[in-house]
Amino acid sequence: MGILVVGSVAFDSVETPFGQVENVLGGSATYFSTSASFFTDVNLVAVVGDDFPQEHVDFLRSRNIDLRGLAREAGSTFHWKGKYGYDLNEAQTLATHLNVFESFKPRIPTEYRNADYLFLANIDPELQMEVLSQVEKPRVIACDTMNFWISSKPEALRRVIENVDIFIINEGEARQFTGEVNLVKAARAILGMGVKTLIIKRGEYGVLMFSGDSVFAAPAYPLEEVFDPTGAGDTFAGGFMGYLANTGDTSEAGIRQAIIFGSVMASFNVEDFSLERLKRLDYHEIESRYRNFKSLTHFEGLTGGENPLR
Amino acid sequence: MGILVVGSVAFDSVETPFGQVENVLGGSATYFSTSASFFTDVNLVAVVGDDFPQEHVDFLRSRNIDLRGLAREAGSTFHWKGKYGYDLNEAQTLATHLNVFESFKPRIPTEYRNADYLFLANIDPELQMEVLSQVEKPRVIACDTMNFWISSKPEALRRVIENVDIFIINEGEARQFTGEVNLVKAARAILGMGVKTLIIKRGEYGVLMFSGDSVFAAPAYPLEEVFDPTGAGDTFAGGFMGYLANTGDTSEAGIRQAIIFGSVMASFNVEDFSLERLKRLDYHEIESRYRNFKSLTHFEGLTGGENPLR
Repeated sequence: MGILVVGSVAFDSVETPFGQVENVLGGSATYFSTSASFFTDVNLVAVVGDDFPQEHVDFLRSRNIDLRGLAREAGSTFHWKGKYGYDLNEAQTLATHLNVFESFKPRIPTEYRNADYLFLANIDPELQMEVLSQVEKPRVIACDTMNFWISSKPEALRRVIENVDIFIINEGEARQFTGEVNLVKAARAILGMGVKTLIIKRGEYGVLMFSGDSVFAAPAYPLEEVFDPTGAGDTFAGGFMGYLANTGDTSEAGIRQAIIFGSVMASFNVEDFSLERLKRLDYHEIESRYRNFKSLTHFEGLTGGENPLR
Repeated sequence: MGILVVGSVAFDSVETPFGQVENVLGGSATYFSTSASFFTDVNLVAVVGDDFPQEHVDFLRSRNIDLRGLAREAGSTFHWKGKYGYDLNEAQTLATHLNVFESFKPRIPTEYRNADYLFLANIDPELQMEVLSQVEKPRVIACDTMNFWISSKPEALRRVIENVDIFIINEGEARQFTGEVNLVKAARAILGMGVKTLIIKRGEYGVLMFSGDSVFAAPAYPLEEVFDPTGAGDTFAGGFMGYLANTGDTSEAGIRQAIIFGSVMASFNVEDFSLERLKRLDYHEIESRYRNFKSLTHFEGLTGGENPLR
């Protein structure tokens, strides 16, 4: 099966109340690919500068991520600098140096164009459309975006949404995009734009999925130690798409399981800076936390016979 | 079985982006009792002024709520005035007129003292202790509080907590009470104070329950129309305790089901101002929404055989 992902590979400098790191590996496509690589093959399309160290290339290769689509241009790699307060749900961007990413034109290698699963990470929706024009018919297309594109290119974003199956967005962005304060109304408005499945990320509160008349709520895993939420959304998307690509099960039941695997992956990622936790993650931990999600959310349904009401 | 509840019966004036009401029926014990009355018998202890209309007394009686403990004093009934912005999670208090509630000394009628289930709604923790000294050995004692008591009487509140089985508190209060930003750490600290089960309310994000090493996450029901969140927490507690009292099942499985019934009741309550939605609620709606909660949260567990990881 395998997934094609187009997004950013970056350096991050991040400060949280629990520590800080400078120029560490980051970027939406990096988090996505690493997370998805636990489930399936990943083909990555992104651009880095000539300052991008071999060490990071080696790490991505060690995850079996195919890097033929990783362009290297003269100049510096995209650099994001941000800070989180005790409310880890909201990042404050201190600096964004696009560098080589500024003139990024995604060129999909021929051998990637028949990918069955495509993830359009958060980039300019016009570039997302260019990617769509280069691929054959993927079975599942998912995409992410951010507040900047919602306010600057809403029409382009709508065109993207009309062409994708699964749209992944955070709570505030869903409200911003639709002008609806009520999240259920915002979700209905976005489904009305032609997307089949909408996943709304709510940070430490988990995820809501809307699809037709069905709604699914998944909590975030309650963690005692959250060091750095950077990349949690892309790590979620990587686990989610990775599971779909691995199983091929895009039924509602399959999508729900995929959401839990995405949540599992995100819950690990926030336990350390950069991709450090994913680097030392093993399969048994993933399975074990999936089971913990089951016991975290399980309650008995009503049988026909009982009547707890008087 | 039956529940004894001690708290406030009040008039509320509430403004939300969707409308406003003046001097409508409110109060923690009112919401709690009405909600619990769908499941079991309720004995209410509170005080009202001589301005409290017969119409409200008749309504509470119509719910089979025993009002022998409802004292009537000369003066005005407690009046709360508040306002919500589009973020319905946070009320802004515009005025609090305690009136007859200021000198409230809960006196538990003799015939209520052997109650099996006791709910101490949000009142002065010193008064909560006085209630505890008047009752025999309830099977289950639960209590609520608020930020005002956490900052003004933390020691008295700790003494209450040492004597109750279930403590219900909201997210911000849990952080305030313990000084822990991380909610899991805050929960561990509160469990360490001697309470067996801690329920943390997170408004539109649902509820987390901590008990021993077990954690349970229940979402709030995603609603398209939320008119007024006033009383949601007490309505939750009423459904929760009502279910426990009805079934007598205080196992972990029973407590999880009780949390879902509490969430069901709260989800109805926010659909209209004051207790209007509860007044026109019927049993079939409660059962039906419970089933909807099951489908809202259900996903398949892992069987031994599959391996979605590569």
